[in-house]
Amino acid sequence: MKALIYQGPGKKSLEERPIPALMKPTDAVVKIIKTTICGTDLHILKGDVPTCQPGRILGHEGVGIIDKIGESVTTLKVGDHVLISCITSDGKCEYCKKGMYSHCVDGGWILGNQIDGTQAEYVRIPYADTSLYKLPSDIDYDAVVLLSDILPTSFECGVLNGKIQPGNTVAIVGAGPIGLAALLTAQFYSPAEIIMIDPDDYRLEMGKKLGATTTINNKKLDAVKTVFDITNKRGVDTAIEAVGIPETFVLCEDIVAAGGTIANIGVHGVKVDLHLERLCSHNITITTRLVDTITTPMLLKTLIAKKFNPTSLISHHFKFDNILDAYETFSHAADSKAIKVIIDI
Amino acid sequence: MKALIYQGPGKKSLEERPIPALMKPTDAVVKIIKTTICGTDLHILKGDVPTCQPGRILGHEGVGIIDKIGESVTTLKVGDHVLISCITSDGKCEYCKKGMYSHCVDGGWILGNQIDGTQAEYVRIPYADTSLYKLPSDIDYDAVVLLSDILPTSFECGVLNGKIQPGNTVAIVGAGPIGLAALLTAQFYSPAEIIMIDPDDYRLEMGKKLGATTTINNKKLDAVKTVFDITNKRGVDTAIEAVGIPETFVLCEDIVAAGGTIANIGVHGVKVDLHLERLCSHNITITTRLVDTITTPMLLKTLIAKKFNPTSLISHHFKFDNILDAYETFSHAADSKAIKVIIDI
Amino acid sequence: MKALIYQGPGKKSLEERPIPALMKPTDAVVKIIKTTICGTDLHILKGDVPTCQPGRILGHEGVGIIDKIGESVTTLKVGDHVLISCITSDGKCEYCKKGMYSHCVDGGWILGNQIDGTQAEYVRIPYADTSLYKLPSDIDYDAVVLLSDILPTSFECGVLNGKIQPGNTVAIVGAGPIGLAALLTAQFYSPAEIIMIDPDDYRLEMGKKLGATTTINNKKLDAVKTVFDITNKRGVDTAIEAVGIPETFVLCEDIVAAGGTIANIGVHGVKVDLHLERLCSHNITITTRLVDTITTPMLLKTLIAKKFNPTSLISHHFKFDNILDAYETFSHAADSKAIKVIIDI
Amino acid sequence: MKALIYQGPGKKSLEERPIPALMKPTDAVVKIIKTTICGTDLHILKGDVPTCQPGRILGHEGVGIIDKIGESVTTLKVGDHVLISCITSDGKCEYCKKGMYSHCVDGGWILGNQIDGTQAEYVRIPYADTSLYKLPSDIDYDAVVLLSDILPTSFECGVLNGKIQPGNTVAIVGAGPIGLAALLTAQFYSPAEIIMIDPDDYRLEMGKKLGATTTINNKKLDAVKTVFDITNKRGVDTAIEAVGIPETFVLCEDIVAAGGTIANIGVHGVKVDLHLERLCSHNITITTRLVDTITTPMLLKTLIAKKFNPTSLISHHFKFDNILDAYETFSHAADSKAIKVIIDI
Repeated sequence: MKALIYQGPGKKSLEERPIPALMKPTDAVVKIIKTTICGTDLHILKGDVPTCQPGRILGHEGVGIIDKIGESVTTLKVGDHVLISCITSDGKCEYCKKGMYSHCVDGGWILGNQIDGTQAEYVRIPYADTSLYKLPSDIDYDAVVLLSDILPTSFECGVLNGKIQPGNTVAIVGAGPIGLAALLTAQFYSPAEIIMIDPDDYRLEMGKKLGATTTINNKKLDAVKTVFDITNKRGVDTAIEAVGIPETFVLCEDIVAAGGTIANIGVHGVKVDLHLERLCSHNITITTRLVDTITTPMLLKTLIAKKFNPTSLISHHFKFDNILDAYETFSHAADSKAIKVIIDI
Repeated sequence: MKALIYQGPGKKSLEERPIPALMKPTDAVVKIIKTTICGTDLHILKGDVPTCQPGRILGHEGVGIIDKIGESVTTLKVGDHVLISCITSDGKCEYCKKGMYSHCVDGGWILGNQIDGTQAEYVRIPYADTSLYKLPSDIDYDAVVLLSDILPTSFECGVLNGKIQPGNTVAIVGAGPIGLAALLTAQFYSPAEIIMIDPDDYRLEMGKKLGATTTINNKKLDAVKTVFDITNKRGVDTAIEAVGIPETFVLCEDIVAAGGTIANIGVHGVKVDLHLERLCSHNITITTRLVDTITTPMLLKTLIAKKFNPTSLISHHFKFDNILDAYETFSHAADSKAIKVIIDI
Repeated sequence: MKALIYQGPGKKSLEERPIPALMKPTDAVVKIIKTTICGTDLHILKGDVPTCQPGRILGHEGVGIIDKIGESVTTLKVGDHVLISCITSDGKCEYCKKGMYSHCVDGGWILGNQIDGTQAEYVRIPYADTSLYKLPSDIDYDAVVLLSDILPTSFECGVLNGKIQPGNTVAIVGAGPIGLAALLTAQFYSPAEIIMIDPDDYRLEMGKKLGATTTINNKKLDAVKTVFDITNKRGVDTAIEAVGIPETFVLCEDIVAAGGTIANIGVHGVKVDLHLERLCSHNITITTRLVDTITTPMLLKTLIAKKFNPTSLISHHFKFDNILDAYETFSHAADSKAIKVIIDI
Repeated sequence: MKALIYQGPGKKSLEERPIPALMKPTDAVVKIIKTTICGTDLHILKGDVPTCQPGRILGHEGVGIIDKIGESVTTLKVGDHVLISCITSDGKCEYCKKGMYSHCVDGGWILGNQIDGTQAEYVRIPYADTSLYKLPSDIDYDAVVLLSDILPTSFECGVLNGKIQPGNTVAIVGAGPIGLAALLTAQFYSPAEIIMIDPDDYRLEMGKKLGATTTINNKKLDAVKTVFDITNKRGVDTAIEAVGIPETFVLCEDIVAAGGTIANIGVHGVKVDLHLERLCSHNITITTRLVDTITTPMLLKTLIAKKFNPTSLISHHFKFDNILDAYETFSHAADSKAIKVIIDI
């Protein structure tokens, strides 16, 4: 089969590899139908993720058909269409029992990282019963593949941790794919205001189309002042950090209202300043989270019920043979105006 | 009447002042029976609290008897014994309706700060109906006066925000009065382990007596290593910061388990480093809070039911005439072994 | 002024009465702009509400302008446009402090019941600071008047108590005004399915227009069987009882899924059968509630943000002189197709 | 091996049976060290549990040593000491993922009911990874065996569902084993008052010893009147039903305070009257639950930390050869003063 291989910092290639086999009775092998590229894949390619070694097949998102199934798997069978979760869950460790699959002692984010991933014609999935989700037959796979990672990530780390409630005021700092995905699912809870903050006008325009009530270009405007003007000097009930750099986290600290929440989604490379000299009496909550994908069943139900449309995040489609072009497009988003790129296999 | 007056940084005096009068129909004037000194009073005396101007009567804790009552006050009458909350609540602003009295638009922490306080023979209390708590006749006033501030502060900011649950592991960083008070009320929820961390052996000994299961002198031992040794390399479910300096906050970051909570009580003067490069995937929650005293009725009920004994925090008693000695004792706690000092008026 | 007077069971009249005066410093007198009629007003007229005695001015819903204001009221002034809550809250009793205004020791539902109400040109409102809500100038009063009672009632007792979540399945039993109002606010939380059950096809049609995904006429169809067919034999996550008779409550018991919630809104006149022989192992929750109107600020924010449109519930408008016709229309809803009738004063 | 066999209504016998074998790779076979008898076993013997057919080995509680282990079990090995949960959980169905193991599609309460149970020298446990709990070596097995069923049942269905909080007032109706177990774990949350209601003075005396603040013999006293006298006419915040008959459930309805909760533990054979004509405006919550045993890890931690002592519930010990005597003793509790009987195998 063909597979996209990480070849060390800055290097990747599309190569021939053997089709994976079952290794344990709880495994499944899935024939991939669609996959996509994540910002994390770009991090790996920069050499930022030491757990991912050269030779690894990349990718942790995908939909496909079960091709081989282990003898201990009871809820799935060959031929089932499935969503692949970016998080592998053994369903039985202390963390999985608490719903914290991200910290599964024999799983977590291992796909396309510590084991071979989904940017290939086939992938082996450990703990298939608890790491795959069976799909109905008449579902839009373009939409579903976005439920592997970006939608549960933005929903769990941003929307749920941010405790968004009807009538509340929300700011999303960062209008990249993850910020826009948070924008979509934030609307499940009917906040009164969703303010989108980003230095890129095209992405802000996207935000406006997808439901933001206000957008602020923080390259052109003083974002803190503008937020306080909009919110009667209160600030926002929820500030979602969807970038991952110190400046944007501090911006969240500056705009969160007394009693509010900062929900961090961004992957940070360095420490940030936490201004406790001001915030220690401000009654705020700060949350961090690696996605657990515990809400995948809920998100599938809302998708099937057409309560939101994730395909609005898709900017490009590619054939698998052209996955190197897909990476090129996705990694130059400012020029290509890429949000999410779908790769059909 | 006699009153303790803040005379500017480093200066205070016991002086004669007129007995306060009612200013609004919602006021009460309370004749003080007992008061105490708070770490915040020492902060004021250092000049760290700009809202408190010279000439102010200090003190925001006390029990007393209602001496005069405004005509709009309906739940209290002259002669009632009352607990004075350190937080004034108007009961009708947006914040008070949400239970966030600390941010009351016409109250909050104003006693002994923006208006005259309780280290006097009499004090005027605005919004008496919602800022005083009627006491039963047969209650121990020494215990009750600790419900003005230190107990709701440690309980709300530390224990409740820290989401302490039966069977959990808790670390309290700082064994001063506030840390020891958190230790008392943490036990309402039956955690399995309470680890107390402080550089003062006497205070750790106090912690041991009051219910800590382990104590760590972090001047002598590597606290992070010791906590991980105790907790099977997991860290603690809840880390309560009860000091207010960068080192102790970072210690909390270092010992909190994946999925855990850092509940900040300490009043910080400078920013701290938040190590999001490590914690962003650690599924943690950080909370800050100025006490709302919304749990005062609950704490009174537990006190009346003898579910805990706050008087174990009392190290010294003084007559009001000797309040300058009380300050001397309280501000040299390392030598005097002071925890809380009670002043009888 | 003119006022609608309850004259004992079956009798009412529009009469001249003196304009009310302030009685306490916490009162306001409000000049009514709009009011409406509630199902509870019909209950009073049947003689079912013993606390309401003949001679009483009816009505507990309304918007108006502050005409006179007590000296202790600080958050409102003469000329302010206000929403009148159906629940009077003193803001200081044990219940109000817990957000349970419905059980206020000096308030609760007293308007148009134990004190004169809003179906008049003027009304006296006790505890104005905590029982009135200031309105912005550019708001649709027809919509706002529905926030006095029907919307917080359906939202608090039905939607919030019913713990509706994105992706869930909800059944609303009863498509009268209160059931339809629950339908509107249930959508704040993006449930996947909302099934409306009622014997009246016109009301089901209304339900369909306002967002129900399925409707069941339980005079024509077996509602239990139909619900189980729709829900893969699971039943519904939330069953909202919006009628108030034993049959509809038992229907809720029959259709609630394991782990689900029955949220009762209906006012019941007799006991019901609770089938614990089946439900005791079904992990369900049953809730009852008299509306607290604690969510009125949240509902106002969502209204201002146009997150829902309560005016879709309005079927008729009347001038105050024709309020007897309004009662006639509202009390013969099956023929008149009345949902909510607005009375302009 | 020897095993206690259900022989149809009213009949049981101790017989020789073959040692069970592994049937699936997720199974374990456990050599039993200790077991106990549950009220449900008596229900089976009365013929009240149609899912349990003659020939079945009874018992769903036990501690033991793993004797044989399936190849897919990864968290346990032969020789491990384990607690057997009364609830079998597959760890992967919709219900188990939500923590509702009681409704597991391939498990739930099947032990000693639909499959052979623990009153035998060996038992086969399906889904061993998620239905057994590994024990430390130095634990008291008499205490641990009570964590199979009675303690999680009373804790989850009574204490957690009853939302017991520090300072609250609790009534436990029924001082049998399950009511007394609820009494033990209710104290994890430091309620101010725990009122125990039962017609048996011996059991009330036990209640007093184990932490009840008040006891009421409802054969001798008017329980409703007495509760209202104790609680300043308010009633109780939480009423735990631990009997399972209409009278005791209605008693809970009569004593629950406005805003309170009725947490049902009792297994009911017939419907009960729910007095919604009074309770529909009383803001109450009623919960039902079949134990999920999701809190077993938490209870084990509190047990290891010595936060409570379940052995106080043990009244008798028997050798396995005398299990018929144990049944005799347990089923005549009024005379034998039996609470929990331990059977050593």
